[in-house]
Order: sequence, then structure tokens, then C-alpha cells
Amino acid sequence: MTASPMAAHPTPERIFNTLNAYQNTAALKAAIELDIFTAIGKGAQETTAIAAKIGAAERGVRILCDNLTILGFLTKEKNLYALTPESALFLDRRSPANLTSILGFLAKEEFTGQFERLTEAVRKGGCVTQDGDNTKPKPEFWVAFARSMAPMTVPASKFIAELLPSGERNSWKVLDIAAGHGMYGIALAQANPQARIVALDWEPVLQVAQENARAAGVADRYQLRPGSAFEAEMGENYDIVLLTNILHHFDPATCEKLLRRVHTALRPGGRVVTLEFVPNEDRVSPPTAASFSLIMLASTDSGDAYTAAELSLMFQKTGFRNSTIHAMPGLPQHVMVSEKAT
Amino acid sequence: MTASPMAAHPTPERIFNTLNAYQNTAALKAAIELDIFTAIGKGAQETTAIAAKIGAAERGVRILCDNLTILGFLTKEKNLYALTPESALFLDRRSPANLTSILGFLAKEEFTGQFERLTEAVRKGGCVTQDGDNTKPKPEFWVAFARSMAPMTVPASKFIAELLPSGERNSWKVLDIAAGHGMYGIALAQANPQARIVALDWEPVLQVAQENARAAGVADRYQLRPGSAFEAEMGENYDIVLLTNILHHFDPATCEKLLRRVHTALRPGGRVVTLEFVPNEDRVSPPTAASFSLIMLASTDSGDAYTAAELSLMFQKTGFRNSTIHAMPGLPQHVMVSEKAT
Repeated sequence: MTASPMAAHPTPERIFNTLNAYQNTAALKAAIELDIFTAIGKGAQETTAIAAKIGAAERGVRILCDNLTILGFLTKEKNLYALTPESALFLDRRSPANLTSILGFLAKEEFTGQFERLTEAVRKGGCVTQDGDNTKPKPEFWVAFARSMAPMTVPASKFIAELLPSGERNSWKVLDIAAGHGMYGIALAQANPQARIVALDWEPVLQVAQENARAAGVADRYQLRPGSAFEAEMGENYDIVLLTNILHHFDPATCEKLLRRVHTALRPGGRVVTLEFVPNEDRVSPPTAASFSLIMLASTDSGDAYTAAELSLMFQKTGFRNSTIHAMPGLPQHVMVSEKAT
Repeated sequence: MTASPMAAHPTPERIFNTLNAYQNTAALKAAIELDIFTAIGKGAQETTAIAAKIGAAERGVRILCDNLTILGFLTKEKNLYALTPESALFLDRRSPANLTSILGFLAKEEFTGQFERLTEAVRKGGCVTQDGDNTKPKPEFWVAFARSMAPMTVPASKFIAELLPSGERNSWKVLDIAAGHGMYGIALAQANPQARIVALDWEPVLQVAQENARAAGVADRYQLRPGSAFEAEMGENYDIVLLTNILHHFDPATCEKLLRRVHTALRPGGRVVTLEFVPNEDRVSPPTAASFSLIMLASTDSGDAYTAAELSLMFQKTGFRNSTIHAMPGLPQHVMVSEKAT
């Protein structure tokens, strides 16, 4: 919600709405927890019917559904609520693309709690707890990430799989660094039946990736390498290395340290595929990618949302060439592909 | 922030941004606490200068200022930040209209904490703590309100004072019910030098109103009536009764009980002036007024954001006539004026 476009003079409406923006988070969280989207998807349209289906009070349901309509997650015609295409696809639990599990990470107190101390984080210039150094193991936190965030990756993992045509080489050897749920590597394994994936992450996190690989029917081509991206033996002669949502956790020097290790692990001509929130040079657009920097300020010691130029420079300094940046239609992240010189 | 307008297919961006919307609240809160707007207003334009002025880290300041730019509270040109007209007026502490004090209420844990239990509130249909009945005294909470929210009232109190031309009667006798900071009654006293104001509220709250009346130079025409709006002796023969931001706390039956008391206290032909968040009949527009219902769900047993028709009906049932509704340009609230039949 923004200030009234009609206002000729400055008004406090935007300030009021921003100070109350946490209430929007609470509304969507409550709706997912109460499974309101599934109830409406199953045919409940009026407050009474929805309230009966989810076992909640009519006053509560009416006010929540009105607020979900204001936020763009429902439509309302007379007194009948309906799902938007977005809610039907992503918030109805019966949908194969449902991503309601992301609450398990995005609403996790260890994550949201960092923002309660944001003033301190700005003063200090980084995370105010002991959790800001992501080169250190935090397996429990990343297991929650891996268990929760997999559905968010589907469109981007398809994009990456299509970006790397599977016909070009008989068999790929792929290293998925900080694999998490493993979905990006698994998508490559599905796109290329001869691809073999090596997933690197903390040991408890890799169990989640392995479960997902089994569910996707690619477990026989899925190998686990437990350990730190900065210390573990990575193996060699890879065709492709995946760096999805990892570089933003570190400062450029640490990123370059990792890229040198990646360079060593790749065969000549091999490629590294980086997925990141990449703001424009102004660092204030587009909004979702640019605002990701705040999450890095609150939760890491020195991470950032890097621009394409900054990423390119890191790759250039570590022996890569031909870095190309790819926007993903409708998605807030970008993919960068860089080659190891032959 | 909304989903990319270019997206041809549904994307999870709106869901992601809404689940992270509390971070916008944290960003603005941190900026106010660090007094970044005053520092920029005083001439600091670059990260380094701002960081030096507020005693914070450059990384923290750069990321926070970028996020404030994304949210519309700053502009950024090259690497120079500047205040928007809105921020200069409302967020620079040197501005007479600065309303940074509203954090003292809007960020108060007793208020924000209600939203941590919103799922329960939807199930129950109202506030899940013992604080949901606003006919009961909660003086400490309302003192925080009175001390914090006064600056928010300036444009609306001016609007009301102009809506009631002071020339029409030599001396007004005004009753300000649940006066809080007292700003609406005080504005009438300033507009009409012969107006006498009676402020009714819990005793500790009235001390704040009296301070404000003194500061405005109208203390000699400012009288206090401590007690409950539902039980205190109100006095009689009032020309005007102010009901600003009170009806939304109660169900219609309780509102009507209060309106009958107001009716008794007014002279024939006297008027009651109601200030409220008034959604359209669809209850989902305009956004700020309509979404106010969620605050009432979380924090009251049975309050609401009432439509103009619902408010009119309450007045009609309790002996009033000629209810007229007035939009305030650029403000999210409406004013209703209703007459006691002669």
C-alpha cells in the first residue's frame, strides 16, 4: 500500500502503512496456517462457509479475507471470495506448485528475529548475533531452509536447465555447492539423463537433498560430499558448477576464495552457473532484488546483493571469462554463466 | 512492493515480499531510531557523511538508505541521498510537523504483539488477550497513545476546524470524548477563541491533553472530566461532541449505547463529529481505511472499520439526522457530521 496518488501535499499515509507493514506479513502467515486458500480453492466462497471449513470465527474470517483481498491474494465480488491465479497455484495446498512450506524458513524466529535488532545491525554494519559468518556450520538452520524452500526454486531451476542445453555433451559432471534442498542440481539431472550430480553441503542438509533426489528418481546419479564449501575436497573435472544463492552471504574477497576453488574443480571450458538477487547499478531497483541487501545486513557479517558488474569482476579476477547475465521472466533473481578459460 | 508487472505467469514474488513485509517496518523503525532523516536533512548526502553523523557503520547506512529509497522515503541520485518532501516534513526531527513520536505507540509491544497471535485471533474472532474490551480502563496504554500520536492528527484536526465555521455561533461548548492527546478539541479552541472544551478520558490520559492545551495557549478554556465514556457524567447542552477514533473499538450495539449518551448531552441542533477509517461498501477499498479492520480484529473483542452506511444507521437509530460524510484530501480517514433533531 502506498500513499494516496491523489494527495497534492505530503501525507503521513506511507509512514503509517510502512510502520504497520508487519501486519501484512501476519495476515498472510495466518491465512497459510489456517489453510484458508485451500478452503476457498475447494469451493467455500462466503465467510460462513470458509469459517465452517477451517473452524474459525466469522468475524475473523471476514476481516482476514478482506485484508487478503487488499493485499492481492484473493478477489472479492459481492460477498464471494475467490483465489487469484497466483494463490491457486502457490497457496492452495492441493497444488503441486504449492509453496506454503516456505513459512518454515521465512517465518522462523532465528531469521525474523534478526530484524528486531536492525538498528543495532546498522550501527555495527552487520549481523548482531554469532550467526553472521556463513562459512561456519549452521546445519540446523540450513536444514530448515532445505526442508522449506524447495518449492520456491521450481521456476528458476527449470530456467537454468533450459539455459544449459542437455544435448551438447553426452554426460555432465555437475557440482552443486551449498546444495541445500538440491533442487537446482536435481533439475539438471532430470533434464539430462546422463548428468551425474555431486552435492556439497553440511551433512544433515545433504540428507534432505538426497530425499529430494530419490523422490525425483535421480538418486542413482546423485552423490553426496559433506562439508564446507571452503574446505571440503570438491573433486575435479566438472562440466558445470552451481552456485545458487550462496555468494550473497560473503564479502567479495571470500567469494573470490570460493571461486578459485570452483575454478580448480572445473574442467577447462567448464561453466559456473550463479543464481543471485542482482540489483541494477543504482542498487535501488528492481525492488525485490535490491531490497535483498537488507536481509544480508541483518543476517550476515558482510554479505550483499551484488550488481552484475561486481559479480563479473569477481569472476574475472579468479580466472573466468565470458560472464553473461540472464534475467528470468517474472522472477526476481538473475542467472550468471561464466566460463573457465580453456 | 508488488509482483513484477511484466510477469506473464503467476510468480511467487508477491508472496515472498509479503512474508518479508515486516522487514520494511524494521527498516523505517531503525531509520527513525538512528535519526537518519535529520542527518540527511542537515546536509549529509553520502554514505560516509551520514554514517559519521549518526555514528553507524557505512555498510549499514548504505544498505539501509538504499532500502529507504526503495520504500519511497529517500531519493538517490548517483550516490547522493536526499529527503523526499514527505520525509522532510514528517521524519526530520527539526520539522514542526515531525511525527517520529508515533513509534512510541505503533511499535509498542502491547500493540505489535497482538499480531504475533493473529492466527488465534482469526479462530476466536477477536483479541486473544484480556485487552480487547476498550470500555474497560487501560490508562497506561492510552497515555502512550496520547504521548505519541498527537502529530498524526494535525491535518485532520485542521480539516475538522475548517468544516465547522467558527463564525456561526459566538461560543461553542465542545465535548471531546476519549480525548487522548486532546488535539482535535484543541484545534477547535484555536479556531474559535470563544470555544470552551470539555475533555473526557481516563485521568492519566487527561494530563497529556492538559499539557497540550497549555502548550497551545487554550488551557483557560479547557476543562477535564476523568472517567469512562460509558459511565462518566458528561454534562449537557453541548454544541459539538467529538468522537474521533473511538467508535471502531466497539460493536454497533455498544456504539449506539455511547451515541445515546452523546444525544442526551447535546443541545437540540447540536452536532456530533465522528472521525473514522471508513471503507467503501466492498470493505476492501481504499486500502488504508479498509485494512484498519485487521488492527481491530487483533486488538479488540468486537471493533471494526465501519462503512458510511453502517455509521449512518447507528446515528439514525439513536436520534440523529442529516449525517454527512466528508473525505479529507490526501488523508485515509473520513469525517461524519450528524445533527441532533431540534
